[in-house]
Amino acid sequence: MGNKKIDLLIDAIERTGNPTAMGLDTRIEYLPQALAEGRNPAGVILKFNKALIDSLADVVPCVKIQVACYEMLGIEGMEVFRDTLAHAREKGMITIADVKRNDIGSTAEAYAAAYLNENSPFTADFVTVNAYLGFDGIKPFLDACEKSGGGIFALVRTSNPSAGEFQDLEVKDKDGSLKPLYESVGLKVSEWGKASIGAHGYSSMGAVVGATWPEESKKLRALLPHTFFLVPGYGAQGATAKDLSGCFDKHGRGAVVNASRSLLCAHQKLKTGDFASAARDEAIRMRDDLRAAIIAN
Amino acid sequence: MGNKKIDLLIDAIERTGNPTAMGLDTRIEYLPQALAEGRNPAGVILKFNKALIDSLADVVPCVKIQVACYEMLGIEGMEVFRDTLAHAREKGMITIADVKRNDIGSTAEAYAAAYLNENSPFTADFVTVNAYLGFDGIKPFLDACEKSGGGIFALVRTSNPSAGEFQDLEVKDKDGSLKPLYESVGLKVSEWGKASIGAHGYSSMGAVVGATWPEESKKLRALLPHTFFLVPGYGAQGATAKDLSGCFDKHGRGAVVNASRSLLCAHQKLKTGDFASAARDEAIRMRDDLRAAIIAN
Repeated sequence: MGNKKIDLLIDAIERTGNPTAMGLDTRIEYLPQALAEGRNPAGVILKFNKALIDSLADVVPCVKIQVACYEMLGIEGMEVFRDTLAHAREKGMITIADVKRNDIGSTAEAYAAAYLNENSPFTADFVTVNAYLGFDGIKPFLDACEKSGGGIFALVRTSNPSAGEFQDLEVKDKDGSLKPLYESVGLKVSEWGKASIGAHGYSSMGAVVGATWPEESKKLRALLPHTFFLVPGYGAQGATAKDLSGCFDKHGRGAVVNASRSLLCAHQKLKTGDFASAARDEAIRMRDDLRAAIIAN
Repeated sequence: MGNKKIDLLIDAIERTGNPTAMGLDTRIEYLPQALAEGRNPAGVILKFNKALIDSLADVVPCVKIQVACYEMLGIEGMEVFRDTLAHAREKGMITIADVKRNDIGSTAEAYAAAYLNENSPFTADFVTVNAYLGFDGIKPFLDACEKSGGGIFALVRTSNPSAGEFQDLEVKDKDGSLKPLYESVGLKVSEWGKASIGAHGYSSMGAVVGATWPEESKKLRALLPHTFFLVPGYGAQGATAKDLSGCFDKHGRGAVVNASRSLLCAHQKLKTGDFASAARDEAIRMRDDLRAAIIAN
């Protein structure tokens, strides 16, 4: 294979000067009323997604597409998921299928085949995974990445309020010391990624680290120098640019920050139906907000 | 709502005298060559699934459908997934959508809407989930179950070889004692299920406990008296009826055992194309095997 997608993602972030992923967690209620009213949700959501991609492709390097929002619409929703991924790729954006898939090895292989090959039915550059089953549930994804150049992000410290319920449990290390579970998962993720470190020093095996946990994310950044972070939680979930600035390394690299509702619903604040311009304005505001926080860090 | 599905599942197990779920993890290579050759995989897999359901519906109370095998076939695969679920329900079987979904609350809500309502696009009686995100990623599923009567199974101790990598890590309890993570997850699952205990004493919030870990499953059975177990790993994954007998309570209840490859591929051993009869014979053999082990327990 040619380039690693993790290097392409980092290149795209440098080119746009913007470590943002637009989170297309699109729901019909996010759309301007005039656009949504009386229409088939799947069709109008595709139209909305494509317009956002067209409007933001030159300022935002990456999209993250939350599959749950499409699964809930059934077959038509999955068609929109597929077509949104394809449209983003056509426009040169890096794509992350946010699917959090996980299973035993033989089944993980089927999931990898669904997303990570160039001829997969739902081809994406990256997928998110859940590592609770250990390495043999992760290896099939890494094998697929080795062929396609793609990458994965495993849940390490999630952005939701009850993230700590299990992730903060203190676990006993080999040497007898105690550390939080998320740290132990993070260290494994780092170990699994050692074989796929790219030209920019980051691995194809990344981690999901919530923006809502400034201390934890800073600690993880120091602990996992070759692990790229996908950072949800900015904006509607409550995290500020300052909160997540610790996810970046000393060169201002090492993370991509997702924003969903704050971009998709930007038109609501402005009371305008021009959702594509509103999202673009918000994406530029967010870019500058992130840049300032990274520089100040 | 009317009856809880967990009670219906237990009733169906008593009626058939068989605590088995047929695992429709169907892949084209499992099919008799004459059936598969030169045909569109999705179409022929649906035909195969329906024939198995028709042949086994009176001896096996339940099907578990592994969505990954259908996702890898794209839109057509998801149609087969939907139609297989619908056909099993029509034939009076209890359905488990094995999707292992997991996300933050608002997204978990979308997943619940995809599977757990009577008018969901992929309606199933039960779904499997992954609890790494803690309670607010589980609650939307439980809320949907409260309305539909459905249930969920959270991963506690999985059947795969590297299950123990995280699940066996010793975690510090509130009282300072150490216990394996899977026990801590199991106890939370039990706590979350307390509000939905049905007429038979089991909750709508169940647990996935691998058949491949006899000691662990016996310990969990004692620890979680109101938690019903979905038990994968019998047959092709290597576990025997004796290995998993500890998953059942003293009345011989408390678990449903999944078998996928051993039923789907039964025709290969017999060198016959009559896969439906071969699966039925194997299901009856498995039923008797499980019964004997449960009685001996």
